[in-house]
Amino acid sequence: MTRETADPQRPPVVAAVADVRARIARARAAGRSIALVPTMGALHAGHASLLKAAAQGGAFVVASIYVNPTQFGPAEDFHNYPRTLERDLDVCRETGVDLVFAPPHSEMYAENDQTRIRVGALAETLCGPHRPGHFEGVCTVVAKLFCIVAPDVAYFGRKDAQQAVVIRRMVRDLHIPARIEVCPIVREPDGLAMSSRNARLSAEDRAKALALYQALKTGEWLLHQGETSAGKTIAAMRAVLAAHSDLKVDYLSIVNPDTLEDVDPPRGDCMIAGAIRIGDVRLIDNLIVNVTG
Amino acid sequence: MTRETADPQRPPVVAAVADVRARIARARAAGRSIALVPTMGALHAGHASLLKAAAQGGAFVVASIYVNPTQFGPAEDFHNYPRTLERDLDVCRETGVDLVFAPPHSEMYAENDQTRIRVGALAETLCGPHRPGHFEGVCTVVAKLFCIVAPDVAYFGRKDAQQAVVIRRMVRDLHIPARIEVCPIVREPDGLAMSSRNARLSAEDRAKALALYQALKTGEWLLHQGETSAGKTIAAMRAVLAAHSDLKVDYLSIVNPDTLEDVDPPRGDCMIAGAIRIGDVRLIDNLIVNVTG
Repeated sequence: MTRETADPQRPPVVAAVADVRARIARARAAGRSIALVPTMGALHAGHASLLKAAAQGGAFVVASIYVNPTQFGPAEDFHNYPRTLERDLDVCRETGVDLVFAPPHSEMYAENDQTRIRVGALAETLCGPHRPGHFEGVCTVVAKLFCIVAPDVAYFGRKDAQQAVVIRRMVRDLHIPARIEVCPIVREPDGLAMSSRNARLSAEDRAKALALYQALKTGEWLLHQGETSAGKTIAAMRAVLAAHSDLKVDYLSIVNPDTLEDVDPPRGDCMIAGAIRIGDVRLIDNLIVNVTG
Repeated sequence: MTRETADPQRPPVVAAVADVRARIARARAAGRSIALVPTMGALHAGHASLLKAAAQGGAFVVASIYVNPTQFGPAEDFHNYPRTLERDLDVCRETGVDLVFAPPHSEMYAENDQTRIRVGALAETLCGPHRPGHFEGVCTVVAKLFCIVAPDVAYFGRKDAQQAVVIRRMVRDLHIPARIEVCPIVREPDGLAMSSRNARLSAEDRAKALALYQALKTGEWLLHQGETSAGKTIAAMRAVLAAHSDLKVDYLSIVNPDTLEDVDPPRGDCMIAGAIRIGDVRLIDNLIVNVTG
């Protein structure tokens, strides 16, 4: 069998800021707009959906792959975070990525780096109190990537809903000239939200992890049934999770998806959000629910 | 007498981010590079030297005039800070400014604005402890201006030496693609460093203010004479200031001009820096001294 065309090539992988800027300048000179998909690698179908969405608009798609230490707490899983660069590059090839930016730490954080960006109240709720410094690390690295890539548009996943809200606010407040697109959560067939951290779960813990989705669906069902108390809804969700030993609940909340403030009684578009820990694996998930009546 | 050419016109003054971006895009399309001179107005010969330096390179010069509230402490002089827009526009005309960006507060800080940028150790010395939050406000507003104007180069005065060091670090750390130029201090004939706040001094206080420069010159003289103790040099400088009643010293320091760390014994390029308060007027000044031997 003759292969009429070569397999699409893996995109070039560059490590230096100057190189990524030079290639982006060439793409811009050729009339392309620039789309950025910031990732920490360990790419799964959720990331692939972002990369495909970015490619669909005809933009020159830059995927960054960088496990950012400043968004991990000292007791968190920076060192155990999955790193799968070879497979990631296959995902990038399959989704039409034009350029992969995979910098070493020294390229992102120069010696004596000491500049940090924080967003206020939006970063202090939900995951905020459970991950001190996390959103500061996220904002800082995303701002660096925006300064390096100067994208017209950047894509984030709704699984990290608070991150998306915080980044939108940073971009608005600092007047960063980029559009933020937030893409839907991609789930496993049984409902588990795709996460790079799922790879760190044993089969037994994988079953427990699903309880978070089941708890959120319980909350959604109750609200659709006409339950008007956020407290009662959350209590029912907690009961779903309480059935599993060795599963710690960081929070379960019903919030306004834009302001992240608690809503009680829930009304209109609400986000039911939760975070759990199974051993040292922390998982988050959320559902947007429209509550009528 | 016939006027062969019309007087140069005052540059256009725009208040909206979208307008300033549109005009800058036209200048870029015409092949101009973009220079930014961020100011709080009340322009004096020091500002004029920055504006002239910016114009000399042939760039399209954007002067911003905005008294930024987030860099003032609650007990500071935000409300009393001199505002002289009409005269400022004459200075802009005379120095060849192409565009003045004079935004209202709501354009720089949208409702619920909550994003802040801080630089670490470099902002925590010298003026830092005396003006909590000051450099965070400076970094935040300068980053906003950089995101709005996207300058190739931005000009700052060396009178605000720590500000220049902090902004250089922010720009380096965040990978902001702008060059920072720092221009020499412009002084009155008697040596007083030009400052918008000088306008707030009575004639009597103006005489006291000069003592800061005299103290710095005393320090410079001692170091050139071979004094090797930073402590003794600073004590002599303090004695110069002690001669004036109602003059409070925030600090007198001899530091490395890049790291802002104390140097003792002083050697090589040193910065002698000081800050005083006369009533509610706070003044700063510095000298760069090369200490040999």
